[in-house]
Parts: sequence; structure tokens; C-alpha cells
Amino acid sequence: MSISLETFFLDPSTEGTLQARIQQMVAQGILAGRFRSGERLPSSRKMAEHLGVSRITVTLAYTELVADDYLTSRGRSGYFVSDNAPEPPAFTAQRARTTTVDWNRALGHRYSDGLGMQKPSDWAQYKYPFIYGQADPTLFDTANWRLCALQALGKRDFAALTADYFDGDDPQLIEFIARQTLPRRGILASPDEILVTMGAQNALWITAQILLTQRRRAATEDPCYPALRSILTQARCQLSHIPVDSNGLPPDLLPRDTDVVFTTPSHQCPTSATMPVARRKALLERAERDDFLVVEDDYEFEMAFLGAPSPSLKSLDDTGRVIYVGSFSKSLFPGLRLGYLVGPAPFIHEARALRASVLRHAPGHIQRTVAYFLSLGHYDALVRRTSKAYHDRRQVIDAALAAEGITVAGEGAYGGSSVWLRAPAQINTTLLAQHLRDKGVLIEPGAPFFAGDSPPQNYFRLAYSSIGPKRITEGVALIGQAMREMM
Amino acid sequence: MSISLETFFLDPSTEGTLQARIQQMVAQGILAGRFRSGERLPSSRKMAEHLGVSRITVTLAYTELVADDYLTSRGRSGYFVSDNAPEPPAFTAQRARTTTVDWNRALGHRYSDGLGMQKPSDWAQYKYPFIYGQADPTLFDTANWRLCALQALGKRDFAALTADYFDGDDPQLIEFIARQTLPRRGILASPDEILVTMGAQNALWITAQILLTQRRRAATEDPCYPALRSILTQARCQLSHIPVDSNGLPPDLLPRDTDVVFTTPSHQCPTSATMPVARRKALLERAERDDFLVVEDDYEFEMAFLGAPSPSLKSLDDTGRVIYVGSFSKSLFPGLRLGYLVGPAPFIHEARALRASVLRHAPGHIQRTVAYFLSLGHYDALVRRTSKAYHDRRQVIDAALAAEGITVAGEGAYGGSSVWLRAPAQINTTLLAQHLRDKGVLIEPGAPFFAGDSPPQNYFRLAYSSIGPKRITEGVALIGQAMREMM
Repeated sequence: MSISLETFFLDPSTEGTLQARIQQMVAQGILAGRFRSGERLPSSRKMAEHLGVSRITVTLAYTELVADDYLTSRGRSGYFVSDNAPEPPAFTAQRARTTTVDWNRALGHRYSDGLGMQKPSDWAQYKYPFIYGQADPTLFDTANWRLCALQALGKRDFAALTADYFDGDDPQLIEFIARQTLPRRGILASPDEILVTMGAQNALWITAQILLTQRRRAATEDPCYPALRSILTQARCQLSHIPVDSNGLPPDLLPRDTDVVFTTPSHQCPTSATMPVARRKALLERAERDDFLVVEDDYEFEMAFLGAPSPSLKSLDDTGRVIYVGSFSKSLFPGLRLGYLVGPAPFIHEARALRASVLRHAPGHIQRTVAYFLSLGHYDALVRRTSKAYHDRRQVIDAALAAEGITVAGEGAYGGSSVWLRAPAQINTTLLAQHLRDKGVLIEPGAPFFAGDSPPQNYFRLAYSSIGPKRITEGVALIGQAMREMM
Repeated sequence: MSISLETFFLDPSTEGTLQARIQQMVAQGILAGRFRSGERLPSSRKMAEHLGVSRITVTLAYTELVADDYLTSRGRSGYFVSDNAPEPPAFTAQRARTTTVDWNRALGHRYSDGLGMQKPSDWAQYKYPFIYGQADPTLFDTANWRLCALQALGKRDFAALTADYFDGDDPQLIEFIARQTLPRRGILASPDEILVTMGAQNALWITAQILLTQRRRAATEDPCYPALRSILTQARCQLSHIPVDSNGLPPDLLPRDTDVVFTTPSHQCPTSATMPVARRKALLERAERDDFLVVEDDYEFEMAFLGAPSPSLKSLDDTGRVIYVGSFSKSLFPGLRLGYLVGPAPFIHEARALRASVLRHAPGHIQRTVAYFLSLGHYDALVRRTSKAYHDRRQVIDAALAAEGITVAGEGAYGGSSVWLRAPAQINTTLLAQHLRDKGVLIEPGAPFFAGDSPPQNYFRLAYSSIGPKRITEGVALIGQAMREMM
């Protein structure tokens, strides 16, 4: 039996090359049981005419399907669905008709309260996306990333790609972090003091799970990264929110019974404040005196274009009190999900065991790709290129904000990728953001960064990591105009 | 100043092409501050002679380093370290001289007790690796995997690659799972009932965190996958271990106050028993009567070569009591870390929030690569090829075990990738495994699969997923011989 030509159409919503889409169309028809073993496909000529594509494209798609044993070729008789093609299931799919489960009762723990700030997933469609932490395709080094990924996919690396690392990591990546990345932050660490994580978020989460209990007190910055506050809330510890000033976290304000302090000394998130060396030392002295640990999220240290970054807090740590969190996701792209945790071996041992239980390890291919990208020097080259672009953008945004008379409440001492702004007290920046969205401008209202039930409503953050200089000026003008209209 | 030729040597431990290794050598010297701005590199001719490589290789490496702005080319004067090359840090790296932290006290929660079974990381070097769940390079479709990964790295997919999905997943992957993968297991689900996880391990962990509390009772199979027992222990719930028989988990043995049952009906891990449909229905009836939930790890359902797999437990679930765990890591490779969770929307909502807090989402590139591999039909083709190979291997291992008189305690009704064996009572299989390791044979002792302080010592598992037919016969003969020696 021949399969009718009219059965075939290229779903306009599918992506990929024409050949791939034809392959998909045939394979999915077989998988779904619409085309059965022994049935004959239209000739490549007829299929090509029907779909309006070239005949060679159809022939190549058929050839691939033969290789995967979906089709067999019987010389001049044409292509047939193979006898070995996958069989559709003998049963039909169904869903539960009803539910007798009381989900209010069945859910033992809830986590959905802390979802916090949401960004529109189509942010890239907006003309003025002052949005934080997304990849800019005009700056990213796609070509070399592809080459490294390809190298990591090679036969030579099959073991690294597929390896079940159990509770270990890619040794090449760990070695580069230990020998090159950490020394540049003033840190020496051996492999048993380093753990690869699914981004900084995962590193912070693991740390909180290990160090905190219901009886322990964590201190965090206020304002701070909302996801960190969710992590600490879920850890069900006691929690102090310490107001930051223009030098970041003031150690004097920490309660005496603090057990663990979470801080972002390089660039405080979201104010971008950089903690001066004197204050870093004071914080470490307090840690020693009051016997607490410090978790340093070395947030955006690499975005330093106004001056060399200070050494990390951990590099000043004489007594092993600092746990260090680094990330590749920020300078590469957030979809990468790759970061690392550095700390004393007993801590890393527990972190490794917890990670093994939660997710085993970060995918081998990603680890190896990053190892190549780092070791070939592409990473540092990318950071420098990005920093230069951010330097230009920072000058443009500073000028534009000054021209509009918008008050800068915080900026990084040696760089960063965002500025923290204070609107006049009567402006609610959540409303401002809604208003601006209709004009193609995305800003981040400040309220979700603050702790407590009545956060200040007049702060906002503008990031310049995904928007070029020309659009920055236009966008800031639209923000200024909207603020004047709301006054 | 010229950099002396003698400074350069190719570290024999590095991997990659010669060109890449030369690039690494120069880039790392610059990053480490050994080569400074303005210093001249040896000419490509001299460097090539010194390293014993062709001149074009050195020239290509230099050209790449110019593109990344590590070097500048000054025409006939040669190559110099660029003025824009990364600066080494102004401070030196150090580690804490001492520690004043009492880590026994500082660690609030410990996770390292449950590490369980370890496999040698160099298992592939053994001649007879009867080891479970590792990728076999002779079966895996590396070529098409590379093509799919490459396609997912294309400019067209830049957004999918880099996207910060926040708490979402790759829509293409979710759509394929919903439209093709799940219907083949008899399941209909909408996107808000599906969550992508870091492998089945991560899916089970998330489920336990949400459904269990200190007051709730989980029931699991005995023996069972040791990592699942760790997950349940860490969830600090009440825990019942239910002895399985040749039909898997017997529902009659479940305590009345059970809240959540974890089961592997397709192939019980590790006995490979398949739960018959009548028992599946009895389990669901008990679930309804006693108001508990069932977590179905649809373990290895796709390795079905002796008969068509039964529909999943979830497909029989009329009242929404089954949470379904699927995995791509097993049929692709464990280093992939990709699985999924299917359940009622209120549950998936909480699972999504927890995953966002712990790790945000699985890397975008991996999700998109799998989406292509699935939709082009390569995945099903791979599963079929693998199943055929396993079918051959299963016949060989059955014959070899019979010839050696080794008792099979469990085998999958329609396939699987391992057999579960019982040695005579006086044989301790942990000692047997140590003994065999010296002869190049890796087997898995059974004790870690059992609950309790005095597990039976005479069970073991032999997997045939990473060992070809010829080696199976030889290896089983060595096992038989070792067993006779130990008697």
C-alpha cells in the first residue's frame, strides 16, 4: 500500500533545515502509528513537487531515515516503511478522568511562594530591554563556543561526554579553575576544595542546606538577590536582613548570634556597591570574633573596566571562614548553568554528597566545553571584549541619566552591568515598569529586592548588558518622560 | 624583549589538537603573568622547530591568539603580547594558613553517609565490565548526536542555547515529550504537568522533598536503588522497606498509614522483575482505598526486546495518584543528566518552584540537542539498535550462566540490561567482587541494594550494557571459576 501524498505537509511551526523537517515529518508519522511497516512512501520526485522543495533534499532525508532503519530502499521500487520501524504502542494514551487526591493536604512542603521577580520570556522582542543577566548575541563569541563544544563532542572526548561522574567532576575543568581562575582572585585551592555546581544559584542553595538549621541564624544583605532570600527562607533558619550602604554590607550591624553571612562584596546585588578592603577586613575580624562563616558570592567581579578588581574576600581569609561562590553563567550565558563552590575540604565533602543526591553532577559535555573555552583563552578574551562594551555603555547611561535628572543610588566602583536608581518618593516603580512596557522599555522595579512587607516602592534597576549605546539614550529618555508624567 | 624559546613546552598531559595545545600554552602563560605586554614571541619557524610541529600549526595558533587579542602581529617583526592582553592579578594567591572553624559543629546537616556503592572511575579499562548504566561507545550514535548538538549551537538557536528559562523549560522538548514520548507510555499530559529534571535522580529527589515530611510515611522496595534510599533518608520521613518478589512490589505488604510509595514496575531495580498488570491494578486500588500516592520510576521500559512493554502504571491511573518519572540519561548516556517528571499540575507547580530555587533549569543546549535527537527519530532508532544488541547479549549471558550453574534470581520479563544473581549462601559477593577485580572482571555486589544493617551478602548484579557477547562468555566463566574457588 502506498501512503497518500496528501498525508504529508511541513508543519510551519517546526524549526531546522528543510531536510531535518522532512525527516521529522516521516519519523513522527511512523512513531505515531500513522505509517505502518511495508507501506510505500511517495517517490522523492513526487514528494519534492508536493512539498515544493528540491528533490535532493527529499532524497537526503530518505537516506537518513534508511540509516536509522525507519525506511528500507527497494531499488527502483522506491522507499518503504521498514519492517524494523518502531511499532506504535498497542494501547491508547489517557489521562486521569478525575482526581480523588486532596493536593492541599498531599503537598508536604511548598516552595512556590518565593518565585519573586519574573521577566517576560520574550524580553528580546522589546526595543529597550534594560534587563539584567541575559546574553547579548552581539557580544558573545558564538564561533569559538561552537568550536569548543564540537571538540568536546569528539570521539576523543566520548568518555568525558558520557561519563557518569557519580559524585565527581570533569578533572580538566577542576584543574583549570584551581590553576588559573582562582589564582586570579587571589585564591589557592586543591581539587578536594572545589565543587562544580549548576550555576551560582545551586552553589548558594547547597551551602544553605549544609550550614543552616532551624536554630541557626543567617544574615543577608537588604536589598539582595530575591532568589537568595527564597533559598534562605526555604532553609527555615533564623534570618536577619542587614541594610547595605554605599560600601555594601556594614559588619557592625550583624547580630552577635549570626552563624552564616551571605554577601556580594565585588558588586553588591542589586546596588552594585563595592566593599572597600578595610571593610572586608573588618568583616573577617568580626567573623573570627563572633565565630561565624561568610559566604562570598563573587558576583560580577570580572566586569571590571573602571579599575582592577580588589582581591576576593576569600583571598584575605586567614582562618578558613570564607566559602566562595563563582559562576561562569554570568559572563558566558545564563542558560549554561555552571558555577563552582570553593571551601574547606570537610564542607566540600558534604556539598558533594548533597549534590550527588540532588542531581549527581553537571552534564559532562558542558563541563568539557567550558574547560576548552577557558583553557584556549577565549573566556578571558570574551570578558575583555564585554567589559569594553560595558564601559562604553556605562558612559552613555551615566550621561543619559544625568540629562534626565534621574538619581543614581548605586554604581559599581570598578564596573558591573547595571545601575541602581532612586525615583522620587511618589513614584511607584512597579507601575512605572508596567507603563514603560507598553512603550517597549523593560526596567526592573526594585521592590522584590527588599525584605519585609513594605519595601520601598521607588527604586529600580537598569542593566546595560543586553542593550546597545544608541538604544540606551533613547530608552532613558522614555523613562525620564514617563517619570515626569507620573509626577 | 623576546620570550626565550626554552620557556615553551607542550604539557604532555593536555588534550586536544596540537594547534589547540599551542594556543593554550601561550594563553596560559599570558594569563599567569609569565609573558607581559610588548614581549616578542619566538617566530613561528623557531617555535615549530623547538616543539617539533609543522610551521603552519604554530601560525594558525598565533592567528587565533591575535583574533582573541592576546597577541598582535607587527608584520615582519613578528608576534608580540598585545597591549590589551589580560593583566595578571596584582596580588598573589594564598590559602588560609590555619582554620579556627570547628567543622564538626559548623556543618548543620550531613549528607555524606548515603554515598553507597562506588564504581571505579576507570571501569572502561577493565576487560570484563559487567557494570550497570554506562554508555557503550560501540552502540551509541555519536555521529547523529554531534549533528543535533551542532544544530542546537547554531545562530538560529542562540536564544534557546543561552536562554535564562527562569522556571521554564525548552518548549520544543516539552512538546515532544507531551506529543510523542508520553503517548507511547499510554500517558496524556499537558505542558503544565511536565517538568524537565537533571535525570531521574533529580526527579525522585524533588518528589521526595515535596511530598514527604517527618510525619509522613514513604514505602520503598527492598532491595532498591541505593540512591533512592539516600534521598528518602535525607527527607527524614518514616520509611518502610517492602521486600519484593518475582513480580516486584507486593501491594499487600504496604502499611496502612503509607503516604507515598516509590516503585519501579517496568523493571524492578535491581532484580529486573516486571510487575504484572493485575498487580499494577491492585496497587492502584490500594492507593485509592488507603489514600496514598505512587511515584513510578519507569525504569528501563524502553529496553524491551522480549515482548512489548506493558502500559505504564500512570496510564492505568484513573484518579490522578501516580507521579511518573522518566529519563533520557539511561538510553542516551548518564553524563547527559536529563529526565522528566509528570504529575498533576498542583504538584508540578511546586516541583518547578523547588527546582528553580535549587538549580533554576537544565542547561538549554542539552534540552535542545535532545529535542532534535528525539524529533529526527534518532532516539527511537538508537533504542532499537541497543535493544537488539542487548537481546543478543542476554541470550549469551543466559547460556553462560546456565553453563556455570549460577542461579538467576531475577530477570526482566521483556528485557532490561542486567540480571540479578544469587550465589550460594556461603559466598560473600563483596569479597567475590574484590577477587574478580584483579582478574579484570567488574561485578556489582548486591548488599548495598538492601535496607537494614544485615543485608544478604550473596546477591550480585551483572549488567550487559557495556560488554560485548564474546567477553560476556569469558567473563562469566571467570566468575564461575572464582565462585568455585571460594566454596
